[in-house]
Amino acid sequence: MDRASRAYVSDHVSTATDGVAGKRPRRSADETRAEILNTAEALFRSHGYASVTIADIAAELGMSPANVFKHFRTKSSLVDAIATRSIEKTLQVLKTLDGKAPASQRLFTLAHDLMQSHLKKIEEAPYIFEMILVTVREELDCGERFQEIMIETISQIIQAGVDEGTYFVVDVDRFAQAAFNALACVIHPVMIANEKADILATRCREVVALIDAALRSPLAK
Amino acid sequence: MDRASRAYVSDHVSTATDGVAGKRPRRSADETRAEILNTAEALFRSHGYASVTIADIAAELGMSPANVFKHFRTKSSLVDAIATRSIEKTLQVLKTLDGKAPASQRLFTLAHDLMQSHLKKIEEAPYIFEMILVTVREELDCGERFQEIMIETISQIIQAGVDEGTYFVVDVDRFAQAAFNALACVIHPVMIANEKADILATRCREVVALIDAALRSPLAK
Repeated sequence: MDRASRAYVSDHVSTATDGVAGKRPRRSADETRAEILNTAEALFRSHGYASVTIADIAAELGMSPANVFKHFRTKSSLVDAIATRSIEKTLQVLKTLDGKAPASQRLFTLAHDLMQSHLKKIEEAPYIFEMILVTVREELDCGERFQEIMIETISQIIQAGVDEGTYFVVDVDRFAQAAFNALACVIHPVMIANEKADILATRCREVVALIDAALRSPLAK
Repeated sequence: MDRASRAYVSDHVSTATDGVAGKRPRRSADETRAEILNTAEALFRSHGYASVTIADIAAELGMSPANVFKHFRTKSSLVDAIATRSIEKTLQVLKTLDGKAPASQRLFTLAHDLMQSHLKKIEEAPYIFEMILVTVREELDCGERFQEIMIETISQIIQAGVDEGTYFVVDVDRFAQAAFNALACVIHPVMIANEKADILATRCREVVALIDAALRSPLAK
């Protein structure tokens, strides 16, 4: 990355410029970590993931690369941390879901809202798609964290449906896992990033209807 | 690509060396096209997709780049053609499926055999994964061709289940589309490339069971 680009980013990352000139205030490890992530995210956003190095991030922060390395040894581990942070934020969506709606409605809202949230993020920052491919290619931990929380949430919805008397599933956790996998076509960023909005809307409705029909079937185990 | 690499590839692509020294026999456009695809595929395989240029492919074939451009204007269009050829071959698998087995068994075999076929290809040639990401990122036509044939095949299986009296679906085509989407987690190369074999085996069984339960439900429309 050249000097002009760095100057541009400097103007757009407040955390990198709020020390007194030449003297950085002492920070806790957590603060430093968050600062590195903010700066890395801003650099990836403006320059693309591939063209930014750890040295660029360190220079932007006025840190030594060794200091950045203490927190993140590779660019992948940075991506993992950025993605995990973003996933945690996305999953806040789940907490706002209406717990009193019928289970089938909640399942649709869950899939639909997550899909929309992913689409919005990808639209706002196209570099995110490249980062997602990194998380897929390198099997980063963030994917597992997402899966864990999603399956737990789907299990709760299915259990509510069983309690309501509309769903007939015995092994709720196993079914929730299958439902999560079936939903990959509408919630996995790679599956939706380049798809048209109307196609995705239909896809989401139809796949949730399929899962719902299976849940209502007395044959579901 | 350097000269030594080119010499290596020359030894491994028979189609590039079967002319009389210095004089290439005249070929039909279709033959030239196939020859370009074979050579491009071999070069991608040995050097990775990103590092091979159209000029490299032309040099390897002893053609002018302009001649290659006449057939393929971009590297993406080459990937599209290579992927389409590979998909057509994979889909031959479908023809060998036992049409007399019960519909639910056929659905499982379809998903399972396709998943295995994709895994085998990715294992044989890791560069394929990178090419797949290109097809996803650039929305190449090959994906649509695959989808079309798959939905047709799934429709036939569902219709057979309806005729058998085990499935209760009215809008077979619409349901086949939803089933195809739900199966993305086991047949889309990006979804399976880095996943462990036992996890995939379970995932395939459970997702097909989910689809099967939905198809057996009198509520499925």
